[in-house]
Amino acid sequence: MALVTTLDSNELKKYAESQKSRYESVLKELVDIASVSMDPEKRGDIKKLAERAAKLLTDAGATAEVIETKGNPVVIGQFVSSPDHPTVSIYNHLDVQPADASEWQNPPFDMKIENDRYLGRGTTDDKGPALAVFMAACYAHEHKLPINIKFIWELEEEIGSPNFEDFLVQNKSKLKTDSVCVSDTIWIARDKPAICAGLRGLQGFLVKLKTGEKDVHSGTTGGLARNPIAEIAQLISECFDAKTGEVKIPGFYDDYVAPSDKEKQDFVDSGFNLDAFQKAHELKSLRTRDTKEATTRIWAKPTFEVHGITGGYSGPGVKTIVPHYAEAKISMRLVPDQTPERMIEIFTKFVKEKCPDATVELEGSLKPYSGPSTDKFQQAAKQAMLQAFGKEPAFVREGGSIGAVVSMQEVLNVPITFLGLSLPEHGYHAVNENFDWTQAAFGIRLFIQYFELLSQIK
Amino acid sequence: MALVTTLDSNELKKYAESQKSRYESVLKELVDIASVSMDPEKRGDIKKLAERAAKLLTDAGATAEVIETKGNPVVIGQFVSSPDHPTVSIYNHLDVQPADASEWQNPPFDMKIENDRYLGRGTTDDKGPALAVFMAACYAHEHKLPINIKFIWELEEEIGSPNFEDFLVQNKSKLKTDSVCVSDTIWIARDKPAICAGLRGLQGFLVKLKTGEKDVHSGTTGGLARNPIAEIAQLISECFDAKTGEVKIPGFYDDYVAPSDKEKQDFVDSGFNLDAFQKAHELKSLRTRDTKEATTRIWAKPTFEVHGITGGYSGPGVKTIVPHYAEAKISMRLVPDQTPERMIEIFTKFVKEKCPDATVELEGSLKPYSGPSTDKFQQAAKQAMLQAFGKEPAFVREGGSIGAVVSMQEVLNVPITFLGLSLPEHGYHAVNENFDWTQAAFGIRLFIQYFELLSQIK
Repeated sequence: MALVTTLDSNELKKYAESQKSRYESVLKELVDIASVSMDPEKRGDIKKLAERAAKLLTDAGATAEVIETKGNPVVIGQFVSSPDHPTVSIYNHLDVQPADASEWQNPPFDMKIENDRYLGRGTTDDKGPALAVFMAACYAHEHKLPINIKFIWELEEEIGSPNFEDFLVQNKSKLKTDSVCVSDTIWIARDKPAICAGLRGLQGFLVKLKTGEKDVHSGTTGGLARNPIAEIAQLISECFDAKTGEVKIPGFYDDYVAPSDKEKQDFVDSGFNLDAFQKAHELKSLRTRDTKEATTRIWAKPTFEVHGITGGYSGPGVKTIVPHYAEAKISMRLVPDQTPERMIEIFTKFVKEKCPDATVELEGSLKPYSGPSTDKFQQAAKQAMLQAFGKEPAFVREGGSIGAVVSMQEVLNVPITFLGLSLPEHGYHAVNENFDWTQAAFGIRLFIQYFELLSQIK
Repeated sequence: MALVTTLDSNELKKYAESQKSRYESVLKELVDIASVSMDPEKRGDIKKLAERAAKLLTDAGATAEVIETKGNPVVIGQFVSSPDHPTVSIYNHLDVQPADASEWQNPPFDMKIENDRYLGRGTTDDKGPALAVFMAACYAHEHKLPINIKFIWELEEEIGSPNFEDFLVQNKSKLKTDSVCVSDTIWIARDKPAICAGLRGLQGFLVKLKTGEKDVHSGTTGGLARNPIAEIAQLISECFDAKTGEVKIPGFYDDYVAPSDKEKQDFVDSGFNLDAFQKAHELKSLRTRDTKEATTRIWAKPTFEVHGITGGYSGPGVKTIVPHYAEAKISMRLVPDQTPERMIEIFTKFVKEKCPDATVELEGSLKPYSGPSTDKFQQAAKQAMLQAFGKEPAFVREGGSIGAVVSMQEVLNVPITFLGLSLPEHGYHAVNENFDWTQAAFGIRLFIQYFELLSQIK
């Protein structure tokens, strides 16, 4: 059965525009609450945001519930139409990455508006998109579209959703749905809408090496005292080639399923542009200038990454100490069919072999995800995008990880689609994160169209 | 001509004990002024300390002058006996290493006394020894020993004495002397007095690599974006083997003069004890358990050291960014006949080759020093030590660097001796630095004996 859109595009545009000032004032309220899940001191803000989000739902006539977990709560709610109508569940997260205010042009938790751009931590990841979808749902509710819309707003996504699977299992009956739509992904460029068909997984590690009780004088002890920073640096260089990114840990690529030639060609055909990517992320150079290789590397290849090495002297100039401690912050991005379990096993073994007295601590763990790109929900997503944007979206994979997705696939066992609204220049996880009204307004229209199409899928 | 001591040991012991409370109150005044030369914000404290030190001299009847340089001033002064008498110049420094109060058991700049131990930054390096020598000089002055004693108190030693050579050249006539004695070195152990016959040099470097304008999302960009921390880590592992300390930069050992078998045996015979060294520096393990190899490594071999790698994420846990910047803080300790110039040349070339867009900035530069161990000034030092301690000192080299020494050798062109008072457990450059009355009292007696012996060298 072909899906039919009946809603008038101009009416939807008018609706979106009519919501602009409400969108901006609510977004500012949400962004100004510093819901940094990585920072234990922000527990109060997390709680405050959960309550504010629940009120947003009830004020609009939806039900709302703040469900406690062992960690941060999850806010759920719904606009009920009729038990006979199909149900879609929208997933967003309302927690954010940390932000060091001293590095930002504007305070990260005091949202400013400049030329229809919203500046602040969480504007694009993921409060702005969450609010756009919510406003589309309000339209569907007010205009009595024959669809039930549920909301799942997580508050631990940025720390790898450690309690989300448990939450799903505990609340499975409340969460019954025909499909899930995730709005937390990024387009290739402003004029290149994309629908995500796969996500990389993640395994984080802290590698710690302590060789003494205090930093000592490099004149008095240098040559005889061990240097833990240098040993950790050496270990990292044994793990992978920093120039090419090629991982050297035995077994790392064993379960890696390389994308097919067809899929690689799709990546190229998606319209991905190396120069635009480099510019959006403000990078001076890239590991390759070949588009097929580049897209494969960010979307479909696993990585080994070092996020920081701490220990020793970090002030200005050189302080001639031999450090007594070093810590490397490491993660791997994983792709099908790699598993966090296997990575933990081979990495721990490798470290034990190369640097026996270093310890390995596990951080966030997320399985990779790959979904079908051909079912009717994906077709509805594609058609809604075409309708709202006037251009067919590309089906691509995404390099990031959303652990919640794999959990929802496993526990809820329904089709999952991805309709993201963020752009590369919005600065996911970066300083000066931002979002803009163009994408928000487009998102409102997109999701109204999507809800109408889904209402036809019985 | 044999040198003869006539002073009564018991009288000297009584004199030292009589000075204890004065020593402690003045030392506290000096330590409580946070004269951290590495920190530009402490300029006021440097100035304050220079004035306090000058007053210490004039109050005791010596002349004093605070001589400005392009950087921090140098305090000079003298007890004049007669132009016909020999002159010795005592070198100490009154600036100190930085101290992070949060890591210390007691505030570093509020000296506390516990069981005759003096706790605070600068107590052993080098304010405590400076004050002991000064009190010995007061005795010589009061008792009219036939010797002129000059003081050179530097305030930039911990940053590599960048203006000291210039100061020497500018003030050469004022500084005319028959010999120099430096009191800024460390014994092998409390029961193993040592006289230093050589010092390692130093060349510091900052290696900086910038690959973008901001940290970016490792999901979105990882695999394609370069990782500057990993590239710097790889560079370091190419520079040297962190496990053994062996440097791999071509040309590094070209000018290195290995110590003779005789000298290596002297190192072993000095009484150096591996377990005591390990315990004093609170190290979990060492690169070797062989005493000959160990002493050679810290005293007579050059090193490559990493003091810290900054950039990326340094908070708790793992933040999955690709860093955009990394900086390695590096230094080499040099031994005869290595030169800073040659090291700069080969290191810069090596970095350019291995990591072309990294930049190398030069930090402190100090030539290695080696002096004779047989002239009459060394003999006087040895005899004074025997007289005051009852045991012959070992002649060893020292692993640290005192740039001022090489400058004095070159500009003043007179014999230099080293009579240090510090012990390994005093924690040079470490947290909880301390000094003790036993060493201070001994130092007062030692230098009185030394002054008497020097007065006989015409």
